[in-house]
Amino acid sequence: MTSTKDRERTELQTAQFNLSSYLAERKALVEAALDRSLPVAYPEKIYEAMRYSLLAGGKRLRPILCLATCELAGGTIDAAMPTACALEAIHTMSLIHDDLPAMDNDDYRRGKLTNHKVYGEDIAILAGDGLLARAFECVALETQGVPADRVLQVIVRLGGAVGAAGLVGGQVVDLESEGKPDISLETLNFIHTHKTGALLEACVVCGAILAGAGTAELQKLSRYAQNIGLAFQIIDDILDVTATQEELGKTAGKDLQAQKATFPSIWGLEESKAQAKKLVDDAKAELAAFKEAAIPLSALADFITNRTH
Amino acid sequence: MTSTKDRERTELQTAQFNLSSYLAERKALVEAALDRSLPVAYPEKIYEAMRYSLLAGGKRLRPILCLATCELAGGTIDAAMPTACALEAIHTMSLIHDDLPAMDNDDYRRGKLTNHKVYGEDIAILAGDGLLARAFECVALETQGVPADRVLQVIVRLGGAVGAAGLVGGQVVDLESEGKPDISLETLNFIHTHKTGALLEACVVCGAILAGAGTAELQKLSRYAQNIGLAFQIIDDILDVTATQEELGKTAGKDLQAQKATFPSIWGLEESKAQAKKLVDDAKAELAAFKEAAIPLSALADFITNRTH
Repeated sequence: MTSTKDRERTELQTAQFNLSSYLAERKALVEAALDRSLPVAYPEKIYEAMRYSLLAGGKRLRPILCLATCELAGGTIDAAMPTACALEAIHTMSLIHDDLPAMDNDDYRRGKLTNHKVYGEDIAILAGDGLLARAFECVALETQGVPADRVLQVIVRLGGAVGAAGLVGGQVVDLESEGKPDISLETLNFIHTHKTGALLEACVVCGAILAGAGTAELQKLSRYAQNIGLAFQIIDDILDVTATQEELGKTAGKDLQAQKATFPSIWGLEESKAQAKKLVDDAKAELAAFKEAAIPLSALADFITNRTH
Repeated sequence: MTSTKDRERTELQTAQFNLSSYLAERKALVEAALDRSLPVAYPEKIYEAMRYSLLAGGKRLRPILCLATCELAGGTIDAAMPTACALEAIHTMSLIHDDLPAMDNDDYRRGKLTNHKVYGEDIAILAGDGLLARAFECVALETQGVPADRVLQVIVRLGGAVGAAGLVGGQVVDLESEGKPDISLETLNFIHTHKTGALLEACVVCGAILAGAGTAELQKLSRYAQNIGLAFQIIDDILDVTATQEELGKTAGKDLQAQKATFPSIWGLEESKAQAKKLVDDAKAELAAFKEAAIPLSALADFITNRTH
């Protein structure tokens, strides 16, 4: 039971918590680690292509979530950093491959030319493969001070999140649904819980596994992640309608153009916003038992719904 | 020191060893395990695409090498089977991606249409990604009765073998060398030690790691693998010149057509055959200390140079 006093203390600390400086500090740590994780060697071209996309900026939400849950569950930033880097490498791989002409055929990503526009399709395919392989190698090789069986559990989660039962499966259903603006809400949910949700859930769960969290904690954190994952995607769909290309750093109105079903196309904008808000509230409710240790995760949940790009 | 008696016993057992039935039996075990490793689920299309290439036949040399070294070093087939399946999944991923129009643009592989000719480029890219992710998941999740730190070492080796320091790097230099029939022997060696050699070495070394082999054993087995890896590629180049499309199950004369430097183009056919034979002899010399436990690996080395497809 959370006492009134506990709740008041948590509320006070929440008010004092500065998310902007937290995010800036964590982002700097992650970017330094990503830079170190992939030194250039021969043949330079492939390392440059991998680094081009891996170090192209972005909010680094996935690694930051991983570090945050590891700390929440009593672990250290250092213990989670190789996994955090792996998660960003996997995310980057998925973006490079998704942007290919045979897939979504995008020219811009994060305000920069996409990987294949700079390096060619062949190198872009290989850069994705290299990042995916490096992700697993990195976790297995560089995780320090964590029992080996926990590291194996992390690898199982990462593999599941990116494979046919995760990201890849979501992307397949997404591709199949193009030009079908009348797909069901169930299909739309499948796409997003797999294409975006599975990896976000892995971020949160892997951090906690590394810290030795128990089953009950992992379940709460899984539900937190599932909720913010879906909220994240609803917001993404909303922003595709309402934000400008400059704000997004990628082509805006892409979903409409591709005749894709989106949450706003099914629910309308207002209901989509309400659903996203409810998911974030539910996510935050899962964190109650962690008290002030969950302040960063709680603030991150709000951040996801309040973002404008 | 190997005594005359020891050597005579090994020679007798070598004479009695039936490689054909050994290969047939191991291939059947591997194919059953591969089939079990990837059951079809929703969305069926991606599992079918992954299974199409994973179960398309082939000699299964990589998994067979992995099982053989695990046994040689005192381990069991069961302990090595998830890694053996992972190695075949990684190999299959590399074939699917290499065959893409943006890469080698091949229509046939193992006598069947290539993955993208059947499922489209988008699904072929994703099928490769899914197989790569599944490979790591499979090793981490399904390896039984092996200490977790050894399993992590295997994952490090697999990641290294497929990434920019391995297969991907070799493929990049290979692509860069197309249309340059005058590349150096050093470059040609780099291509093959990375594009083919790194994964073959991982097969051999991972099997031994799972069985708990020591550093000295791993070094001998690494050198064995490096030698047969290069011999394997020299033979591949020779067969591209001398074999028919029907024998190869893929487009013949492809290297000449693509103006690729090959070992026969640098050394000529006869010297290439001599070099391959020397590499196989060197490989077999590394096995001497393992006595009759190495009979299968020794026979496999001969098999590689004697193959006609």
